[in-house]
Amino acid sequence: MIVVVTPNPAVDVTYRVDEQRIGTTQRVRSVERRPGGKGLNVARVLAAEGAPTHSVLPLGGASGTWVADAVTALGLRSTAVPVPGETRTTVTVVDDLAHPTMFGEPGPSVPAAAWHVVDDAVRARLAAVRTAALVVCGSLPAGTPPDVVTPWITDAVVARALVVADVSGPALLAAADAGATVCKPNREELAEATGCPDERDGALELLRRGAGTVVVSRGSAGIAAHTADTVLEVPAVPGVTGNPTGAGDAATAGLVLALTRGADLATALRTAAAFGAAAVLRPVAGEIDHDAAHRFTTDLETTRSPA
Amino acid sequence: MIVVVTPNPAVDVTYRVDEQRIGTTQRVRSVERRPGGKGLNVARVLAAEGAPTHSVLPLGGASGTWVADAVTALGLRSTAVPVPGETRTTVTVVDDLAHPTMFGEPGPSVPAAAWHVVDDAVRARLAAVRTAALVVCGSLPAGTPPDVVTPWITDAVVARALVVADVSGPALLAAADAGATVCKPNREELAEATGCPDERDGALELLRRGAGTVVVSRGSAGIAAHTADTVLEVPAVPGVTGNPTGAGDAATAGLVLALTRGADLATALRTAAAFGAAAVLRPVAGEIDHDAAHRFTTDLETTRSPA
Repeated sequence: MIVVVTPNPAVDVTYRVDEQRIGTTQRVRSVERRPGGKGLNVARVLAAEGAPTHSVLPLGGASGTWVADAVTALGLRSTAVPVPGETRTTVTVVDDLAHPTMFGEPGPSVPAAAWHVVDDAVRARLAAVRTAALVVCGSLPAGTPPDVVTPWITDAVVARALVVADVSGPALLAAADAGATVCKPNREELAEATGCPDERDGALELLRRGAGTVVVSRGSAGIAAHTADTVLEVPAVPGVTGNPTGAGDAATAGLVLALTRGADLATALRTAAAFGAAAVLRPVAGEIDHDAAHRFTTDLETTRSPA
Repeated sequence: MIVVVTPNPAVDVTYRVDEQRIGTTQRVRSVERRPGGKGLNVARVLAAEGAPTHSVLPLGGASGTWVADAVTALGLRSTAVPVPGETRTTVTVVDDLAHPTMFGEPGPSVPAAAWHVVDDAVRARLAAVRTAALVVCGSLPAGTPPDVVTPWITDAVVARALVVADVSGPALLAAADAGATVCKPNREELAEATGCPDERDGALELLRRGAGTVVVSRGSAGIAAHTADTVLEVPAVPGVTGNPTGAGDAATAGLVLALTRGADLATALRTAAAFGAAAVLRPVAGEIDHDAAHRFTTDLETTRSPA
């Protein structure tokens, strides 16, 4: 069982229009709605690869009900924690002419009492038989104290579960402080949270705080894992083009899947890179090309450097 | 009791952003959600002016549930008819620099069986004591046969209720065919539905089909009422600036309110023009400046021309 916390789930809406033009009334030709948020993308990939998951989701209002129903329809197990207000919506407008435009709502204001219910839900899941991992992914709702992640991670560490935290800003520091097994920011998030422009310096700061390993996704430059004395690096799969949305979440899923199945860090890193590339081949975030993922994993090579 | 049918209700969402820019990720600074659709705007103004209303609303999915809850929270009585799919959302993006951009979803596909339930709901309301009027306002969901309006209007005519139809396209012709007391298109809608570029010719076509009176809103040029032998005209209230969204719906509400209270057509037309202007003074569709509306009504003058 892998417990996945998505602190700020969303209804991800995509509008296709003929031509994006500011100041006009645009007829939406097609509407797609998907349950979103990084953790839910991770849970979908994990579940598709045969790993049982349980998602913990603070949800509010009609859009929260929609997410809960959609998650169930996808066959994912979840606990919805009711919060006041409306779960956020993101609207992405696409045409065939320009880059997509994305509008992101700030999301509901989640009170401390609701976070305590999330704490209880995480703790209950961790107490369930054979909980292998806790994954915490994505942004926090606006105004949420960053240390909201602390009890989840602390409880998971006590329960000897693997903890992978893909969070940003002060929450990334809090996750490291709480002893997350793996902190997995991208390069920009690492620099922003630690204030260190150099990747190695930033990773060392998270390790010093208590992170077991720092995995840094580098986009088209691949992915790296930092420990106190080593840097492992895996290049990106070459020649893969498509939809990069959700590639980072698929990489997280690959990393979690490999580590919970007993793989070493080098193999887990290759799996992460392969899953990320296999997500680019699919038009929808939260899905990967299964066969490509497994082909890519064996093709990639790891470079190990003492640091 | 005024029965108001909104065939294609909506969740009207307004996103405020710093600066609209295509191809970027835009942080939404504030989100407003309102139950929308022209009929609901009319019902809100009527209810605020003390006229009891009952709205009939085909609603589907989580957004339909949201509309039903929001309508109840506004103190409006309604019957929700369940339909498959999601009630449409409109997203209007505003900043302080450019004109707003509006994205309109096509709305759900409503099957014939659901329209029959709407027919029954309208008929049940018309049978209630002292039903004074039926108002049918706004677009039909995509793919809806235009004669879906026919049984509502026919039943109301039989029940001797006033019928005001603010619909467009073939549904406007169907409303006239069914004998609506008042058809209330704007100039563009009248020309488009009848194929007559001349307003008088278009009005005569609707009168020939069976409409009792044709009221044409002319935007900043005021409002006119056409009967077989007369044209009444009321100018727009001068010097009113603000938010024109929902002004036409407020005008419809003014017209309905005056006619159900026994006013003559000239007074009803002045009330319509006054309510439209009083809506421009309010930032939100579905609301009017009550005092201004009543001041404007007495200030306006009607021109009567034999035609």
